[in-house]
Amino acid sequence: MIETEAPLSLILFSGTDDKLSAAAVLAVGAAAMGRPVNVFLQYYAVEAFRSDRIHADHGVALEASIAQAKQVAAYPGQHWSELLRQAKELGDVKIHACALSMEMFHLEKCDLDPIVDDVEGVAAFMTDASGPITFI
Amino acid sequence: MIETEAPLSLILFSGTDDKLSAAAVLAVGAAAMGRPVNVFLQYYAVEAFRSDRIHADHGVALEASIAQAKQVAAYPGQHWSELLRQAKELGDVKIHACALSMEMFHLEKCDLDPIVDDVEGVAAFMTDASGPITFI
Amino acid sequence: MIETEAPLSLILFSGTDDKLSAAAVLAVGAAAMGRPVNVFLQYYAVEAFRSDRIHADHGVALEASIAQAKQVAAYPGQHWSELLRQAKELGDVKIHACALSMEMFHLEKCDLDPIVDDVEGVAAFMTDASGPITFI
Repeated sequence: MIETEAPLSLILFSGTDDKLSAAAVLAVGAAAMGRPVNVFLQYYAVEAFRSDRIHADHGVALEASIAQAKQVAAYPGQHWSELLRQAKELGDVKIHACALSMEMFHLEKCDLDPIVDDVEGVAAFMTDASGPITFI
Repeated sequence: MIETEAPLSLILFSGTDDKLSAAAVLAVGAAAMGRPVNVFLQYYAVEAFRSDRIHADHGVALEASIAQAKQVAAYPGQHWSELLRQAKELGDVKIHACALSMEMFHLEKCDLDPIVDDVEGVAAFMTDASGPITFI
Repeated sequence: MIETEAPLSLILFSGTDDKLSAAAVLAVGAAAMGRPVNVFLQYYAVEAFRSDRIHADHGVALEASIAQAKQVAAYPGQHWSELLRQAKELGDVKIHACALSMEMFHLEKCDLDPIVDDVEGVAAFMTDASGPITFI
């Protein structure tokens, strides 16, 4: 059987605030339980971690109704970047930016918030994430 | 190696009928194979389980073309809520609503269809879902 | 603990080029590491594998800004179908189309690109994918 300390490997593809919040809450929960967490940022998620935009409004999933979008925005929870910072303090949480997506959006490591540990290729990510992968 | 009876932990984030149907079919398949299933409802999926709206039209993914949306709607399969009910009869299937999302949308347990077992926090969900997580 | 050679089971639901590319890169990475890969095509992903449309423009996630969509389109990487072909040459990679989705879109096996191995039901897929499932 899978042990409680099985690593949680998250690929973040979407860059909207609702999905990033859901992912951050998962990372905090896993870290609190002693599970190592590997986060791999791809596509629109990478751009959401740009240091000049990380606190900007990244919108919500397009399926949200206007009423739902308002309720999500009005919810007084912590920002997902703050939750991820806490997850990193709580446990073994690493955040990697996908090298290919960085190239796609013409980004360098220094363009990203320092919460991102490094830039790596898919092969390196999958060496760490040798088990299950959650795609968000 | 992972055993056949490994639990299937599903986080439902999206509230469109196509994704909820895909999730329900997975839950039925897993239950039929004797896998325990933990479902955690977040964001737009929680609202889709409101007892006053569960059979309403929840739309499809926004990437669907008009032709595709028509074909999905015309398909004479069972409603996802009915499939989930069957999954619960077949095996060990639990459906939890995320406490944080309930608060976000100002919902109480009694607002949800009785197919939902309870409201719980992420920490409680992750105690059950100590292994892989599928995010839909 | 989960072994390095744990199978990677991917359910492809979305049919946009960005998500299909992310999935294909994952499949190549897993195959290169000796992990068996099971791909199950549902909904809009099935239609993307139609032999008469596989190289057509399938768009990107609707959350992409116009600038992002342009950067994704301008990136000179290989087409996802070519990456999947390479993954199949590298390792044990099988691509199955979901029988229910085929029926929904009135498709036959011969309508799909030969890269798709067969059409099967969810039960058959889950017999292979007895472990973790990544939903994309």
